[in-house]
Amino acid sequence: MTQQPLSILTVGSLAFDTIQTPAGKADQVLGGSGNYFSIAASFYCPVEVVGVVGEDFPQTHLDWLSTRKIDVTGVQIAKGKTFHWVGSYDQNLNEAKTLSTALNVFEHFDPSLSAKNSKAPYLFLANIDPVLQQRVLDQVDSPRLVACDSMNFWIAGKPDELKATLKRVDILSLNEGEAYLLSGESNILKAADSIRKMGPSVLVIKRGEYGAMLFTSVGIFLAPAFPVTGVVDPTGAGDSFAGAFMGYLAQAGAHRDMAQASPKNWNQLLRRAVLAGSVMASFTVEDFSFRRMAKLGTKELAERQAALADMISLT
Amino acid sequence: MTQQPLSILTVGSLAFDTIQTPAGKADQVLGGSGNYFSIAASFYCPVEVVGVVGEDFPQTHLDWLSTRKIDVTGVQIAKGKTFHWVGSYDQNLNEAKTLSTALNVFEHFDPSLSAKNSKAPYLFLANIDPVLQQRVLDQVDSPRLVACDSMNFWIAGKPDELKATLKRVDILSLNEGEAYLLSGESNILKAADSIRKMGPSVLVIKRGEYGAMLFTSVGIFLAPAFPVTGVVDPTGAGDSFAGAFMGYLAQAGAHRDMAQASPKNWNQLLRRAVLAGSVMASFTVEDFSFRRMAKLGTKELAERQAALADMISLT
Repeated sequence: MTQQPLSILTVGSLAFDTIQTPAGKADQVLGGSGNYFSIAASFYCPVEVVGVVGEDFPQTHLDWLSTRKIDVTGVQIAKGKTFHWVGSYDQNLNEAKTLSTALNVFEHFDPSLSAKNSKAPYLFLANIDPVLQQRVLDQVDSPRLVACDSMNFWIAGKPDELKATLKRVDILSLNEGEAYLLSGESNILKAADSIRKMGPSVLVIKRGEYGAMLFTSVGIFLAPAFPVTGVVDPTGAGDSFAGAFMGYLAQAGAHRDMAQASPKNWNQLLRRAVLAGSVMASFTVEDFSFRRMAKLGTKELAERQAALADMISLT
Repeated sequence: MTQQPLSILTVGSLAFDTIQTPAGKADQVLGGSGNYFSIAASFYCPVEVVGVVGEDFPQTHLDWLSTRKIDVTGVQIAKGKTFHWVGSYDQNLNEAKTLSTALNVFEHFDPSLSAKNSKAPYLFLANIDPVLQQRVLDQVDSPRLVACDSMNFWIAGKPDELKATLKRVDILSLNEGEAYLLSGESNILKAADSIRKMGPSVLVIKRGEYGAMLFTSVGIFLAPAFPVTGVVDPTGAGDSFAGAFMGYLAQAGAHRDMAQASPKNWNQLLRRAVLAGSVMASFTVEDFSFRRMAKLGTKELAERQAALADMISLT
């Protein structure tokens, strides 16, 4: 009997993005952390996504998500328009410039979990208002593992609320600049120490094309990004990373208790999960929106994972 | 009978540096690629250094180098002043800003090798005029392995001369920006392909605090930098990297023929050499000049190497 992988609940945005990069332009394409995360995680385990969209959001997309083991019954369809982000990247693809943000229906988003949602064994709180992240935490039963993401906007605007969230999560993922901002430190090791004291015992610091750093009680893992020949659009790379990272952990049945019970296995599992995240992000950046993930096959995914593992191997 | 490690000849600058970094200022301290390279390599094998200094250069320093298995008989003492570089770094420690360069005696440097120098089994051509690099190549008998470094100044100013040098070397180390400039590419994989076609079958692209990439016919190795809590001065990191990298290869008795004869061993050796380079650079940046390397013990060195290997281990 093979055991069915446990599922991940994610609460995040489903959005339209309009993006300009050195490689081209995409007008009002599908995006949002909830989308990127769910699709990435769905390569590994069932996903439940909770979010809100407007009446202009294509039902065909929700239907397509459903075909990928992504339960979209938690996506509310509200009167009004869908969240719309307009951004651009210059030659430095590691940093997005926001040109406009129309929150639209997302402005009054108040996540309400179904009975099924509240029992999800894994929870990923995407980059939303930390107050909402806590409201979600109030509604879940007892997940095996809780991860969250955040961004400059909340770190600067709602630091106390964010810190209250951090006390309640196992894993935090942030990019390098956000780690400096949150910690007030200018050295990455000091920043990581400081942030881990805020709550999350596991910290992932994303460094764009330079990969990611994993900090746990066992030590540090330095994961590279998988180098690709053509980066088209970095949007969603971080959420795709998180999706594959959490998906990998869920597929393996990870539990926070492992940190004490079998630290070596826990650490090894987290390291492999980081590589899975890195690889998924490398696919996402190869095209606009999640077009590349939509075309991605499991064989191709496994091959790139093996290739990346080889690129850090000393044997 | 233990075999004595073979020695490396390096031709480069011995200089005074005046440096301002966010961590402080150092006035007219010892530096130069020849110094950093030699000291780093001397942890692994005997070194011969060829260069030129002025009458103001401290004999005590040359004497100190001699105590470290560094043969300084090839250092000419010329009438005039020693090469003096004045530079600064802002918060982005990956990029130096040159404030002034007084070549002084280095302006008329014409490397002339002794009979012993010309028989050196390993050769590292530090970042000097590619015309001089070729004059050195003309004088060596048949080294097992030749590596060289270069910089924007020569890539932009003497591209044809540099390309003539590259045809004659096995290994090239450059930083990321230099690789883009030399290749005319804006993607790192394409840049590496293009540069390896110019001659060097092994290419190391240095990415400052993000580590280094190794390109060989076998594949790509992505090495992180060893994260340190306090970067004082990045000057000499690249040359220290090269010194430990080449020293590691010399200590192991590497030969370019290994690339064909035992590609797997060759690749593994190069990967470990890159890590050794990364570790040595991490010590250099912890203080001004080569003060940190001067204090460095072999136990501490071995410990940090093991720690860095663990930071990329999946097991």
